[in-house]
Amino acid sequence: MDDNRLSIIPLGGVNEIGKNMYVIQCGEDIIVVDCGSKFPDESLLGIDVIIPDISYLIENESNVRGLVVTHGHEDHIGGIPYIIKQLNMPIYATRLTLGLIKSKLKEHGLLAATILHQIDAHSELTLGQVPVSFFSTNHSIPDCLGVVIHTPQGMVVHTGDFKFDFTPVNNQYADIHKMAEIGNNGVLVLLSESTNAERSGFTPSERLVGANILEAFTNASGMIYITTFASNVHRLQQIIDAAAKTNRKITLAGRSMVNVVDIASKLGYLTISQAMLVEADEASKYKRDELVVLCTGSQGEPMAALGRIASGNHRQFAIFPGDTVIFASSPIPGNERSVSRIVDNLFERRARVIYGAGSTTGMHVSGHASQEELKLMLTLMKPQYFIPIHGEYRMLHLHRLLAESVGVNDSNIFILNNGDVVDFAGSEAFQERNVPNGDTYVDGLGIGDVGNIVLRDRKVLSADGILIIVITFGKSENKVVSGPDIISRGFVLAKESEGLLDEVNRITLQVMEQHQESKLHRHWGLYKRDVKETVGKFLYAKTKRRPMILPIIIQV
Amino acid sequence: MDDNRLSIIPLGGVNEIGKNMYVIQCGEDIIVVDCGSKFPDESLLGIDVIIPDISYLIENESNVRGLVVTHGHEDHIGGIPYIIKQLNMPIYATRLTLGLIKSKLKEHGLLAATILHQIDAHSELTLGQVPVSFFSTNHSIPDCLGVVIHTPQGMVVHTGDFKFDFTPVNNQYADIHKMAEIGNNGVLVLLSESTNAERSGFTPSERLVGANILEAFTNASGMIYITTFASNVHRLQQIIDAAAKTNRKITLAGRSMVNVVDIASKLGYLTISQAMLVEADEASKYKRDELVVLCTGSQGEPMAALGRIASGNHRQFAIFPGDTVIFASSPIPGNERSVSRIVDNLFERRARVIYGAGSTTGMHVSGHASQEELKLMLTLMKPQYFIPIHGEYRMLHLHRLLAESVGVNDSNIFILNNGDVVDFAGSEAFQERNVPNGDTYVDGLGIGDVGNIVLRDRKVLSADGILIIVITFGKSENKVVSGPDIISRGFVLAKESEGLLDEVNRITLQVMEQHQESKLHRHWGLYKRDVKETVGKFLYAKTKRRPMILPIIIQV
Repeated sequence: MDDNRLSIIPLGGVNEIGKNMYVIQCGEDIIVVDCGSKFPDESLLGIDVIIPDISYLIENESNVRGLVVTHGHEDHIGGIPYIIKQLNMPIYATRLTLGLIKSKLKEHGLLAATILHQIDAHSELTLGQVPVSFFSTNHSIPDCLGVVIHTPQGMVVHTGDFKFDFTPVNNQYADIHKMAEIGNNGVLVLLSESTNAERSGFTPSERLVGANILEAFTNASGMIYITTFASNVHRLQQIIDAAAKTNRKITLAGRSMVNVVDIASKLGYLTISQAMLVEADEASKYKRDELVVLCTGSQGEPMAALGRIASGNHRQFAIFPGDTVIFASSPIPGNERSVSRIVDNLFERRARVIYGAGSTTGMHVSGHASQEELKLMLTLMKPQYFIPIHGEYRMLHLHRLLAESVGVNDSNIFILNNGDVVDFAGSEAFQERNVPNGDTYVDGLGIGDVGNIVLRDRKVLSADGILIIVITFGKSENKVVSGPDIISRGFVLAKESEGLLDEVNRITLQVMEQHQESKLHRHWGLYKRDVKETVGKFLYAKTKRRPMILPIIIQV
Repeated sequence: MDDNRLSIIPLGGVNEIGKNMYVIQCGEDIIVVDCGSKFPDESLLGIDVIIPDISYLIENESNVRGLVVTHGHEDHIGGIPYIIKQLNMPIYATRLTLGLIKSKLKEHGLLAATILHQIDAHSELTLGQVPVSFFSTNHSIPDCLGVVIHTPQGMVVHTGDFKFDFTPVNNQYADIHKMAEIGNNGVLVLLSESTNAERSGFTPSERLVGANILEAFTNASGMIYITTFASNVHRLQQIIDAAAKTNRKITLAGRSMVNVVDIASKLGYLTISQAMLVEADEASKYKRDELVVLCTGSQGEPMAALGRIASGNHRQFAIFPGDTVIFASSPIPGNERSVSRIVDNLFERRARVIYGAGSTTGMHVSGHASQEELKLMLTLMKPQYFIPIHGEYRMLHLHRLLAESVGVNDSNIFILNNGDVVDFAGSEAFQERNVPNGDTYVDGLGIGDVGNIVLRDRKVLSADGILIIVITFGKSENKVVSGPDIISRGFVLAKESEGLLDEVNRITLQVMEQHQESKLHRHWGLYKRDVKETVGKFLYAKTKRRPMILPIIIQV
């Protein structure tokens, strides 16, 4: 391999939202950017979380110089404890991001074994032979980084997640001047996130939400419940500020809310006076119009704080008629129905509820760049090559069209699949190879041990259950010494379907007789196959269901 | 019971979208309005469809005078074939609705056994002793009825599903004058649908969509694919008209599209010249810019026509770069991700795609009344009592607030659960009793035979699979004569987990020894319980999974 060759490989994050992981390989040095997780869809029965397949990194373990993390969201850090078990590498991240990573590593008992380096937007690292620098961006969590990797072929820029917020909360400005300077110095290839490539215009400033929350608080009577993503620290700050201005104290409900407020205020990202903060157990000592309850559960999770409060199952909090509940959030696609269930419950208790898309309520803005901001980033960076990342195909596709519209050459844009490699050598870039990649499933303590066969069985079991036929034969003769016994689970209720199961019994014996007549006895494989087929057909004709049929033959 | 007593009972349709069924009981006579079905959510594993529990009607079979159907959507007619098997009653519906019902009954082999009466908005029936009349409404399917039941207590008005469209397609006007007259004559109680009670304003006219479709067709090059609900006959008419105006012919893709176009054009609801209609198999004889393909699959169903076309698996149609695909639809909440998958596939084939909410694309309008139209209906009917129906709780709640805003007395509004009874006697209404009610699950051919135990088993099986332990004992002694044999499905791959399963084997025998020491041998119930518990704990500690554990004991 050319010593100077530069290769860029997404191992997760393209053609999907989630499990971001990008590999930048420069000669002998491999730098990994982000290590996210993704939630499974409902077809992946029993799977807890999905992480990237890192076979390629494990194969090249001795070349991996470190993991650079752009920010502290799950789709960028959620894979870390699982990946670190397979491949320990030093981690570079900003203070808040590192705080969140540490909390994860601690939970998995990995904190002592992992090497962590705190960086900031001004840090300059050299990983192996490769200089790496950063620039600050705006997003829905503080302390976000864009990454610049200085390779002999040219500069590689990875935006991380971003928006442009010219009036950010806590004055956490994005460094647009540094971005312009980077662009002026000549960017070889830009990797830019595509989450909101479907949205026209410019994402509003987070401050807009603050003004609307203050107005809602001013008009509210009774208790105020407000829910948002715990990690949206600037949102939390605005809620705290609005509470202070309306003479209310803050109480926290939900484990991740308590956790983030603790980390963020200790690290100085969140300003809240101890006098403002009321313990949940003390809340009953205050009048209802003196409190704001800041809750988890903005996506309708029934077991999160707001879900339990709405259904009347929370130890400390209850809804009274006239209380105000504010969703400072938009339902993520797929969560609309869960959120609706919570709102139904809140209305039953006669709460006033502000809910729906942030664009209609004003209580939420996105943390991602809309089309005009994506064009602004492309214009600042003026990249020779462009790889849209962090999005499903239609987002990558529309981001490509945006790049073309601001002058990037169509043939210099690569829409990749995970595992695809773009190689830069000489003055050219080409995509003609790929590396092992895919979804690694985490189920309980197992990483990657649940595959397609197990999932296929779960699918069959989930739809129509299982029917087990146990039959015992004597060792020396062809005589049935016990059974057939029919046991079913998840198929029909045995009590109510005796006739049906008696028939299965009869069919099982009938197949046996046929086999004996055909001198096929004791070909157990054949016998099982024929019982499965015959019983399966019979049950389908009678019930239009297809349970898993499992004949078990015992010989004594 | 008071001979004149009037009772109103929803058996389906309140606190849910789907399976509408409302019972109006007047003295000895029971009239049923609508008989819908609902799709199960993903927690109801293996269930195909949900229908109302009609125990109450079966108990009172001799009083049931008939089923009046307001219109031909699934949530109003989908339960008919299953309910008719349990309780045969005469069905009253308009011509198109009846056409769709017949097609269902035929499929289930019930056509000959069912008594069908064709009615229209001018019909006047007497069911038992009760006069019933109708009024025409606008909705996203033609031939919709509101129902007026003339009882000794006063008039009961059921709106069916409606919107107000002052410029309807094919001049199918709602009879607003008749509604005004009904209101003037004094309405005792109004049952009005609440689907869009969350939406402010007035739902736009269907004609708006026609104009936008024509514009999109005019600007399109290549093949045009357009998808919408097959039952939206007015939408189909506007698509056909736009095709004619842009000199394109129409081809149909998808079984329900072919079915509805057939029924609706035979019955005169859809005007399409034979010269316009091209068989799918003949489509290849035309140039791509001479055709519009009208497809099923607007909700992202992967196996519907558009789903298969998008993934390159359709026999007759394929996407070429530059083809136009139009979603003349909005994703129903919960279907956003499926629709997105289809759009991803279409972009990969370089189609131009018009997709998203109807409010942003202009390619879809709702068939349901928004807040101002709900207030218009309430104002026209001036009901003494009001029961919001057809909606989840928050929609019913907001509809209540609308009714109060136009002057209905708060204490005269009933938000009901399915099965709740509102009794009208003397000059009063009260809600203090209820009748059997609930979801009846259809799984294959079984109606109501899958209950909570079966579903709970399916849930356990789906998450972590099953582990079966078979052990055979001699009849006369305590000796294990075969096994333990461990068989698992959907848990772990047996090959990769030999050690784990060996341990299970060892534990099973160990529990046996303990039982023998404690003189508990042959207490098989206790033994099974202890094996389940001990093995369960072991597996959870090792894997953090909880498969169903099924010990099977054979005695020979």
